[in-house]
Amino acid sequence: MNGAKPRIAAVLGDPAGIGPEVIAKLLATPGVTEAADILLIADRDEFEEGMRIAGCPIRYAVASDPRHPAFTAGVPLLYDYRGASSGPFERGVATAKGGRYSLDTLTAALDLTRQGITGAIVFGPLNKHSLHQAGMGSSDELHWFAERLRHDGPVCEFNVMDGLWTSRVTSHVALREVPALVTREGVLQAIMLIHAALARSGCARPRIAVCGLNPHNGDHGSFGREEIDIIAPAVEQARAALGPEIAGPFAADTIFLKVQGERREYDAIVTMYHDQGQIAMKLMGFWRGVTVQGGLPLPILTPAHGTAFDIAGQGGAHAGATVAAFRLACRMATARAA
Amino acid sequence: MNGAKPRIAAVLGDPAGIGPEVIAKLLATPGVTEAADILLIADRDEFEEGMRIAGCPIRYAVASDPRHPAFTAGVPLLYDYRGASSGPFERGVATAKGGRYSLDTLTAALDLTRQGITGAIVFGPLNKHSLHQAGMGSSDELHWFAERLRHDGPVCEFNVMDGLWTSRVTSHVALREVPALVTREGVLQAIMLIHAALARSGCARPRIAVCGLNPHNGDHGSFGREEIDIIAPAVEQARAALGPEIAGPFAADTIFLKVQGERREYDAIVTMYHDQGQIAMKLMGFWRGVTVQGGLPLPILTPAHGTAFDIAGQGGAHAGATVAAFRLACRMATARAA
Repeated sequence: MNGAKPRIAAVLGDPAGIGPEVIAKLLATPGVTEAADILLIADRDEFEEGMRIAGCPIRYAVASDPRHPAFTAGVPLLYDYRGASSGPFERGVATAKGGRYSLDTLTAALDLTRQGITGAIVFGPLNKHSLHQAGMGSSDELHWFAERLRHDGPVCEFNVMDGLWTSRVTSHVALREVPALVTREGVLQAIMLIHAALARSGCARPRIAVCGLNPHNGDHGSFGREEIDIIAPAVEQARAALGPEIAGPFAADTIFLKVQGERREYDAIVTMYHDQGQIAMKLMGFWRGVTVQGGLPLPILTPAHGTAFDIAGQGGAHAGATVAAFRLACRMATARAA
Repeated sequence: MNGAKPRIAAVLGDPAGIGPEVIAKLLATPGVTEAADILLIADRDEFEEGMRIAGCPIRYAVASDPRHPAFTAGVPLLYDYRGASSGPFERGVATAKGGRYSLDTLTAALDLTRQGITGAIVFGPLNKHSLHQAGMGSSDELHWFAERLRHDGPVCEFNVMDGLWTSRVTSHVALREVPALVTREGVLQAIMLIHAALARSGCARPRIAVCGLNPHNGDHGSFGREEIDIIAPAVEQARAALGPEIAGPFAADTIFLKVQGERREYDAIVTMYHDQGQIAMKLMGFWRGVTVQGGLPLPILTPAHGTAFDIAGQGGAHAGATVAAFRLACRMATARAA
């Protein structure tokens, strides 16, 4: 990458959802096309349809060769690509065709970013059923990315909102399986991963709070000993490695009060299970949440909300989370280039 | 009870915490002493100390006989009573003496309310360690109330904020014990209890949303089957008994968005475990949350926050939740009298 401007690869996500609409709205958001050179990898008809739905036509150029993109300041470049699928795509329905389109355009974005042609990827919401129908064998897109990138290290989804990062030790598993999966190694790894990601995104000394597992942090072992036996030792180990900015375990029902609003005491919160963090993050700003595919060698980001099939095609989707994903992607691409 | 005004018994709670301060601030809040005839059951020195800490002296009268309180409009009556303890009480420390004082003053309030002299009880925060040191054998104050009232039926703590009610199927147990405790009977009972309580507080046709247990509601059984096997059948049973206003199960990380702000779609949310509801309720308004001792034959309410030993005696405690508890107590006492 030459010059100070980051280069961002943008992908629509599942064409049946609100992805085309929110990506179009992203590009129409004041300042966005000036902040980065944007290479949009999309079926041209789908992108045009996205702009129509969004009600915001924008000026763009078509790339003749995506490997040598000739950017003009302020004008996104479209790489007209649809992979093995052919449109049009039905809205509001999970289909193999939509899944195939999602995977193929993401693969193109991965290839270009791996080659250093773009510095980060922002993609519209995916639909898990579409992806599985299209033959994605991985449990989710995060593990699919890791496989495509031949990345063997640990991975972890991060959720970011207004600069607050969260991650979780367990994710899409039944609640009854959570306690056995909360191990000292798992907690330590989650802390190390989010610490590294924050550092890479420009936060010099990340302050990280770690949640307990049980109500009231187990109340000194009265209801659950995971805090005493597992989480506190992992936090101690992380403090020894990273410094005193790592703290916990904290009762999950009050720790989020310490990061709400302006007097934020932590940059990140490591949670033990999905809803522990997601209930809080969605309440604090559902339409501003960003998901970072954490642990991977490339910055890959998406809005935290889903495809929203129920409102797809109607023009009413918020693009706030997509804009937030874009801005964070710019910071991460710039930090990575430096 | 004669006349339209409710009669409220007020108790300080643990004298080591912020109870005396928030009760004093409650009585100094404009409109409060006009809204009800208030019988304050408290050690006079402790109440005076509470007013001093709060920085708001108020006018009150002393009751010569609490069983025949002679109320003057707008002037709280103090029943100077400390039970078996003698002050002064240390601030910021859990002690048997503080626990004894809490239990004795609550016992007096229970007796007067059971006799119909007062219509509802509002008490300041209690400290569980103090209560246990004082010999309380019950697991918590809710079960202590039930025993004192010889109440055999099911009980359940409700949390109320800005008119939104929540309850939980399991409470102060380790997270690893939660799934086994989420039974069809338990979910059904929780729905029936909160429905009855809402109806008794004046909500004619309560709209109740029931949470799932697993992330994304188990995603059609992909991670956890409790929604399919236990919760959905319980909701169906409740709908058959109560009507179509009962709905669920819903994914816990988004259902609270439907009750946030002005376009509230439900009056109550039944959660499966402690932090599922408490993370949300505390984020939505930590200093406005009220706890209702649910299922009991008398309206008994307290602020949802604790004794806050760390700020006790400093004058900075918010009384918002205590005021909210008082206002709801007035409604419940009025509805009960009608």
